[in-house]
Amino acid sequence: MNDTTDPVSVALASYATSALAKDADAFVSLYTEDLHVFDMWNQWELRGIDAWRKMAQGWFGSLGDERVVVTFADVTSTVGADLALGHATVTYTAMSAEGKELRSLDNRMTIAMRRAGGSWKIFHEHTSGPLEHQTLKGMIKRGGA
Amino acid sequence: MNDTTDPVSVALASYATSALAKDADAFVSLYTEDLHVFDMWNQWELRGIDAWRKMAQGWFGSLGDERVVVTFADVTSTVGADLALGHATVTYTAMSAEGKELRSLDNRMTIAMRRAGGSWKIFHEHTSGPLEHQTLKGMIKRGGA
Repeated sequence: MNDTTDPVSVALASYATSALAKDADAFVSLYTEDLHVFDMWNQWELRGIDAWRKMAQGWFGSLGDERVVVTFADVTSTVGADLALGHATVTYTAMSAEGKELRSLDNRMTIAMRRAGGSWKIFHEHTSGPLEHQTLKGMIKRGGA
Repeated sequence: MNDTTDPVSVALASYATSALAKDADAFVSLYTEDLHVFDMWNQWELRGIDAWRKMAQGWFGSLGDERVVVTFADVTSTVGADLALGHATVTYTAMSAEGKELRSLDNRMTIAMRRAGGSWKIFHEHTSGPLEHQTLKGMIKRGGA
């Protein structure tokens, strides 16, 4: 491994590859055991790799014969001696088995990485979309389902 | 300054103090000039300290004689040699001039800090609340207002 390679860009590329392949093991291998996630959907937070694997298996398992093409825009990476921080706009595009684009959604993503052994892994991830003030009733409250 | 002090906890305490005082200059001084923010409200992202100062002045200026008490829960801090990452649940509680609690809202917050000169400053912040899938229509699309 080339130590000068940007760990954020490498992780995001692997995120996209493993999502396209619906490979939960490859996906989860990008993260630390003690991962903490503020995910866009349905719950306040996720803690630990087991919860994240369950999310990935549920996501990939729900796709049927669709595929998800993940692309990143405006990727910014700040790499320190032992921590790295990246943020980007991520676009999830659902494709039919025939390769037709079905729908697409942008998220805002922040990832924080640290060196674990010889490699960089994600230990915190935060994805979201901004809200209009009047949307508050659709927001999941802390401690909510 | 004690170098062993956790920069994340120091920054969050100063965030709360400056918000309570409605002191936009003190608030903005916690951040780098090239700050990037994924904020909870109304737009996809904010870039640069001038945009952030405008947000703070608008926020504090809109409060009239109310005050905002900011508290943090579940603060987690990871401090590296030159970067630091923190995440927490932040609660904004609006108080009347008479000290009565008017309303309260929880956000999820991630901050990334780096050493700038002798001190730590926030260069990236991400706040959000999780959504139900059916809330998508309330989400601001990228490039939206």
